[in-house]
Amino acid sequence: MDSSSNKTSAVLIIGNEVLSGRTRDANLNYIATKLSEIGVTLAEARVVRDVEDEIISAVNTLREAYDYVFTTGGIGTTHDDITAASVAKALGRELKENPEAVKLLEDRYKEELSPSARKMAVLPEGAKLILNPVTIAPGFQVENVFVMAGVPAIAQAMFDDVASKISHGKPVLSETVTCHLPESYVAEPLEQLQKKHPSLDIGSYPRWTAGGFDLNLVVRGIDKRGVSQAREDLERLVEKLSREFEQVHVLQR
Amino acid sequence: MDSSSNKTSAVLIIGNEVLSGRTRDANLNYIATKLSEIGVTLAEARVVRDVEDEIISAVNTLREAYDYVFTTGGIGTTHDDITAASVAKALGRELKENPEAVKLLEDRYKEELSPSARKMAVLPEGAKLILNPVTIAPGFQVENVFVMAGVPAIAQAMFDDVASKISHGKPVLSETVTCHLPESYVAEPLEQLQKKHPSLDIGSYPRWTAGGFDLNLVVRGIDKRGVSQAREDLERLVEKLSREFEQVHVLQR
Repeated sequence: MDSSSNKTSAVLIIGNEVLSGRTRDANLNYIATKLSEIGVTLAEARVVRDVEDEIISAVNTLREAYDYVFTTGGIGTTHDDITAASVAKALGRELKENPEAVKLLEDRYKEELSPSARKMAVLPEGAKLILNPVTIAPGFQVENVFVMAGVPAIAQAMFDDVASKISHGKPVLSETVTCHLPESYVAEPLEQLQKKHPSLDIGSYPRWTAGGFDLNLVVRGIDKRGVSQAREDLERLVEKLSREFEQVHVLQR
Repeated sequence: MDSSSNKTSAVLIIGNEVLSGRTRDANLNYIATKLSEIGVTLAEARVVRDVEDEIISAVNTLREAYDYVFTTGGIGTTHDDITAASVAKALGRELKENPEAVKLLEDRYKEELSPSARKMAVLPEGAKLILNPVTIAPGFQVENVFVMAGVPAIAQAMFDDVASKISHGKPVLSETVTCHLPESYVAEPLEQLQKKHPSLDIGSYPRWTAGGFDLNLVVRGIDKRGVSQAREDLERLVEKLSREFEQVHVLQR
């Protein structure tokens, strides 16, 4: 798919609870969907444990490989929240109390902050805050790394703030044609169609539901006319193949 | 958490549809939960695109780092299904029609297989089949890499087959104590409790629901007595802190 002018990115989910099965991640899909809408390519995602070396290694690999890295998880006040400290180490920056973050928290709590509550304001030097309309405790950006909470309502609100600030590219358009043909029956003509539209990304996704079997054929790309043309080709193809498939099956009865 | 005698593993999710936001992955949580039950550590997960180099690189990194690699996605019959070919390349094996897989498919379709349908039987040399009770087209194992479908019903059935065959370790036990205290209020005593139980993994997970705010404090470990002892400690701690917190707030009114 020719979206090579769009910025690239990775999502890094930090947390034992996702890898233990305790928590079902809900942030990747939210971020992925938004990134498609604003024309930023999500090239990769990783889930790592709350282990400093593993976080540092993933942050450094991903921030060198892509334009943006979006992390979720591990920015609370408890001992297992080590994301801010790990990101600071990864970037070779000192951890310091951020005065702007302290002020946000003091305004919210309206009392002296406990040492634990102050931890929410201890960020890598030079961090820019990411707003948290839900519980105030901010996320932050350092260089091309955006550090957000793991709790879905907060992660998603923070990502909306981030998405409004990063560089937008060409949105990825998507069209779906659904049929009930076996995947192996459409495989060869679908590959021909992909060859005819090399700048688009054509995928085939079977699905079994209570109502039976669906095959979703999806065209994705940034070129509006190309996507619309490919969708028409796909509809014609599905009509033709469905007719043929029906005839073969009637003949066999 | 002292589960160092347990085998380690990684999950590799292959598919543009997850990174575009079109599809919400449902397999990671299923596999993660089962692995906890059978005592295999899930150390990392990755999501990559349907791009040969990216799949090869992830497969090779993960199979060297961990005892087992479980992949999902990209084993259908269409042009975007390149997992079998990529895994074969990663492992330096030839791609060949697997006679056992051909037989399974012929028994199911009861007719000559089309060239596209035969693709489902083209596997790396030496692959052992992973059963697919849903649509028959098998997954496969080569060395320590287990290749499964992406469609959740099939991936999960395949993983059940895999889970029954790999080496089981000590199951990870988990106990949760729920309270309504702010995380910053429990942070310091919770860290003390973690220090008292170094072989366990104590985590704190805030959650906002329609009913209000919950804080789930979770103890995980393989030592049954230790987990049960830590749970009792945690309950006592939460009781004490809740009483104190209540008093402070009554005094402030």
